[in-house]
Amino acid sequence: MHAIGVDIGGTKIAAGVVDENGKILARTLGATEPSDPASIDRAVSDVYAELSAQFEVAAIGVAAAGFVNADRSTVLFAPNIAWRDYPLRENVRALLTDDVRVVVENDANAAGWAEFRFGAGRDVDDMLLLTVGTGLGGAIVIGGNLVRGAWGVAAEVGHMRVVPHGHICGCGNEGCWEQYASGSALERDARAAIIKHPERAGRLLELADGDLVEGSHVTSAAKGGDPLAIELLAELGRWIGEGSASVAALLDPALVVIGGGVGAAGELLLGPARYAYAHSLSARGYRPFAQFRLAAMGNDAGIVGAADLARI
Amino acid sequence: MHAIGVDIGGTKIAAGVVDENGKILARTLGATEPSDPASIDRAVSDVYAELSAQFEVAAIGVAAAGFVNADRSTVLFAPNIAWRDYPLRENVRALLTDDVRVVVENDANAAGWAEFRFGAGRDVDDMLLLTVGTGLGGAIVIGGNLVRGAWGVAAEVGHMRVVPHGHICGCGNEGCWEQYASGSALERDARAAIIKHPERAGRLLELADGDLVEGSHVTSAAKGGDPLAIELLAELGRWIGEGSASVAALLDPALVVIGGGVGAAGELLLGPARYAYAHSLSARGYRPFAQFRLAAMGNDAGIVGAADLARI
Amino acid sequence: MHAIGVDIGGTKIAAGVVDENGKILARTLGATEPSDPASIDRAVSDVYAELSAQFEVAAIGVAAAGFVNADRSTVLFAPNIAWRDYPLRENVRALLTDDVRVVVENDANAAGWAEFRFGAGRDVDDMLLLTVGTGLGGAIVIGGNLVRGAWGVAAEVGHMRVVPHGHICGCGNEGCWEQYASGSALERDARAAIIKHPERAGRLLELADGDLVEGSHVTSAAKGGDPLAIELLAELGRWIGEGSASVAALLDPALVVIGGGVGAAGELLLGPARYAYAHSLSARGYRPFAQFRLAAMGNDAGIVGAADLARI
Amino acid sequence: MHAIGVDIGGTKIAAGVVDENGKILARTLGATEPSDPASIDRAVSDVYAELSAQFEVAAIGVAAAGFVNADRSTVLFAPNIAWRDYPLRENVRALLTDDVRVVVENDANAAGWAEFRFGAGRDVDDMLLLTVGTGLGGAIVIGGNLVRGAWGVAAEVGHMRVVPHGHICGCGNEGCWEQYASGSALERDARAAIIKHPERAGRLLELADGDLVEGSHVTSAAKGGDPLAIELLAELGRWIGEGSASVAALLDPALVVIGGGVGAAGELLLGPARYAYAHSLSARGYRPFAQFRLAAMGNDAGIVGAADLARI
Repeated sequence: MHAIGVDIGGTKIAAGVVDENGKILARTLGATEPSDPASIDRAVSDVYAELSAQFEVAAIGVAAAGFVNADRSTVLFAPNIAWRDYPLRENVRALLTDDVRVVVENDANAAGWAEFRFGAGRDVDDMLLLTVGTGLGGAIVIGGNLVRGAWGVAAEVGHMRVVPHGHICGCGNEGCWEQYASGSALERDARAAIIKHPERAGRLLELADGDLVEGSHVTSAAKGGDPLAIELLAELGRWIGEGSASVAALLDPALVVIGGGVGAAGELLLGPARYAYAHSLSARGYRPFAQFRLAAMGNDAGIVGAADLARI
Repeated sequence: MHAIGVDIGGTKIAAGVVDENGKILARTLGATEPSDPASIDRAVSDVYAELSAQFEVAAIGVAAAGFVNADRSTVLFAPNIAWRDYPLRENVRALLTDDVRVVVENDANAAGWAEFRFGAGRDVDDMLLLTVGTGLGGAIVIGGNLVRGAWGVAAEVGHMRVVPHGHICGCGNEGCWEQYASGSALERDARAAIIKHPERAGRLLELADGDLVEGSHVTSAAKGGDPLAIELLAELGRWIGEGSASVAALLDPALVVIGGGVGAAGELLLGPARYAYAHSLSARGYRPFAQFRLAAMGNDAGIVGAADLARI
Repeated sequence: MHAIGVDIGGTKIAAGVVDENGKILARTLGATEPSDPASIDRAVSDVYAELSAQFEVAAIGVAAAGFVNADRSTVLFAPNIAWRDYPLRENVRALLTDDVRVVVENDANAAGWAEFRFGAGRDVDDMLLLTVGTGLGGAIVIGGNLVRGAWGVAAEVGHMRVVPHGHICGCGNEGCWEQYASGSALERDARAAIIKHPERAGRLLELADGDLVEGSHVTSAAKGGDPLAIELLAELGRWIGEGSASVAALLDPALVVIGGGVGAAGELLLGPARYAYAHSLSARGYRPFAQFRLAAMGNDAGIVGAADLARI
Repeated sequence: MHAIGVDIGGTKIAAGVVDENGKILARTLGATEPSDPASIDRAVSDVYAELSAQFEVAAIGVAAAGFVNADRSTVLFAPNIAWRDYPLRENVRALLTDDVRVVVENDANAAGWAEFRFGAGRDVDDMLLLTVGTGLGGAIVIGGNLVRGAWGVAAEVGHMRVVPHGHICGCGNEGCWEQYASGSALERDARAAIIKHPERAGRLLELADGDLVEGSHVTSAAKGGDPLAIELLAELGRWIGEGSASVAALLDPALVVIGGGVGAAGELLLGPARYAYAHSLSARGYRPFAQFRLAAMGNDAGIVGAADLARI
């Protein structure tokens, strides 16, 4: 039974027909206007019309970057799209000519589910996905089930507090994990390190070429052996590993999957993360260490996960 | 279908026949020797013989204070009983004359399950149990399922790290939640406060009557209006609430149940916990606050939960 | 022997003739342009001309909000005035017709010296001044001597780190004391508390009357008994007291003087500061607790202290 | 003018005649009983008699490991000797036949003064001594003056708080610097690292040879290139450097002198300390970085400093 997955970004949507093995059989794109939610409803309806003309589909899953309520129908809030208690499922259904099943999913949950079913986590039952990008998003699978929580707002992993009285977060709290374990944190620390240790920052400044240093410069410099860049990634990895050990105290996952742009650093990030995890894990000696792996599904994760979750 | 639940303590075991509504129909007790695991096998076998003579039972669940492996057969480690990779299920089965289903459960998980099915959490699907005693134990129920984790060692909630470089924990790590949110932490802080603020400690010293102040003195003094004792409980409640907010970032529970001896403090503990939770919760405004309630099953929780889990 | 003290603000200067008892015998004001350091040189020269016509003076001390070098001649950097390695003493002397002694002092050091000589600290030899305003400034007097440090940059008390990985400071570091113990911190926390605990924020919102809550609203509400405002000031006081205990581990002062606008809160601030200090002090029991007092010199402290230091 | 310096240890005292250049002209030793303060009085009197027979001396300085009051006469408390409000100066004077000047000094202050006058700090006016041993002791010299504080208890540097809610200290507080920057902290962390990372601990285990790993093993392994040992020293150095930056925010020293047994690690400790200091210093760019140097006076520091301070 095929399903359509739709991944809604800020100004465009990507969609595909996904089979039961997680394979995308056909794809399409559409344009949207983030300030006009109705434009998104129509774009979803359009990609449905286009793709369902090619394949018979039983369901459509829509991945949205925002808080989705527990019955998977309404976007409670989205940071980058003008959704506020927005009944996305009903609005999309009203535009569809078929009586197809429609579900809305948080985009990180959809991506995590894709990794769990078809990607880096397909051999485990208990998995933590960390999407290390601008912020720190994620998804949690426990006992083979996606954790949505009582109100659909679970797996906001970036807002677990790791430092009391720590960095102020955009969410209004202090010390949130994403203030220490995200691409933004990496860039902030890289820029501070350049000021504090100019004698060590030559390579980073060279790569930045007059602009602000970005995460990709750090990864590139580190791969070339630059000691400061290697340290910066190791520090990021340390926070990922230590925070994951706190998650493990609660959930005992078999696997931590690292997604997001910072994953490009590969072992320069995963090595320190594993080491810090081993250093901080409780019940050490009575269970194996969780694996740390890079995400495997790339940009298709949202489409594949949303489609697969729509079938359930 | 009835089941027997057995709660194994250090020097005695308590057992009961439990019906499908969580009611204990018959009870018995037995003595054990914690340094002799075989004595515990026999005691379990004995209570089974005694109780199964009175009621027809389909299963027996054994609640044990230790790490239990994922297939619920072996105690990997127990702090107070000489179990090390101990095949408790097989050893007990070898002593039973009937071919009854036997399962081993972590005691906090059993207690949490009892609260979830028949106690404080019977109206929710997503619940965190915190057992605030000598340490900080707990159980997690998500989507109606007990969270055991990949290797059976989930819900070691007391070892989530809440303070980097924080108090050294018996587990070998730093900053574990139970170093801040447990009866031991309360006593440690009460004893320090007496030294630091003798002018405010009159009531606590009076209750301690020449001995070390204990948690029960703090609760008693606080109920009588003693400001220092009220502050000490509020501080404990604050750590409970703040840590629970970190758990909520991951799991979005509808309910936090507080068990353990410190629960006797009631609202003097729950009030500050709720306030700190509200202060620290992420996604505030997009979901209700979780409820904070006291555990309702008392000392029967282990028996009832173990029996009920054995049926599943 | 009289001396002139000059207190240089952003757009104006205040000056006075000060006698050996710290009394201001005559005053004057002048206007300056912060982006034009030469305008400040001239303004200082003008007030000198005006005041020295009225009284015979032996020296002129200039208090400046910036880093002043160790020989008290050059402003290394000022946040609000365009001084960068600026030879303020030489430039002023070049404009004066008399061969009078000229010294430049950091403004917080000048104010602290005034408190030490003639104000809240006139009965002690070892004193910490904390100026709790937009930031956290201060001055240190040890053994009757002002502490300037090897390069003139001592007593940047607000940048002692109190939280590893803590709030990011404008100075580029993390966890600086002034991020927790300043009027800005009070306002930030008050604004967050209003969002997090709207049910408790009625009085603060009423006083703010549609604008952002400010520190003065918190003080005013607290004096009227508002519980949330009292808590906010107590939290500020707690950070002042705990940080002062760290200073005491190094310097063992007899007195902590609290200046700056937040001092208006009086005992609502000092009480919690004293309590936290007592709670955190080392060598407790082997020395008295330092006193906590409000600054006594008001806005004259800069003039009086600069004049007095110029005489030394 | 010569003076005698006496360094009182647990079970023995070392004394010498010291000239104005800090040179020891004659030495002697004596035995004491730490539980019997009178035995120490007599031992001091005896070494005075012996040494004053050889050289004319003007004063005797006694260095004691304990809190010494501000007028340098009484030991308020000592951790390892039975001094409690003990009038050491008067008791010693009562035993002397000459009317010589007697002063009592804290031993770390005496050692710091020796470094300042004749050792690693003889070219600066503002210096911090850190004695990194079992605990973290120290001395502070500001503007050429030893900082004793209002009640003689200054420079208890190890009890500056560096981590809120941090490790519990023997002093009753949490997060004291010496819990992170001392030989004891190094050993604690080394032992934990062996358990947590056995695959990296081969060299340390080899050196410990069946006993507990000690600080000297870490230093030795690190000097041989062992990566884990190098990391452990770097972590110790990091805490030294970060804490020193907090001290610098207050005192702006030109120099940090590292004494105590851990100094044997040399650059393996100083390098990371300098780096962390540079990373954490405030007013960076407006002053040079303080130097970090090893102590130069060795075990003579107490004798030389006590003698020299007795002359002042």
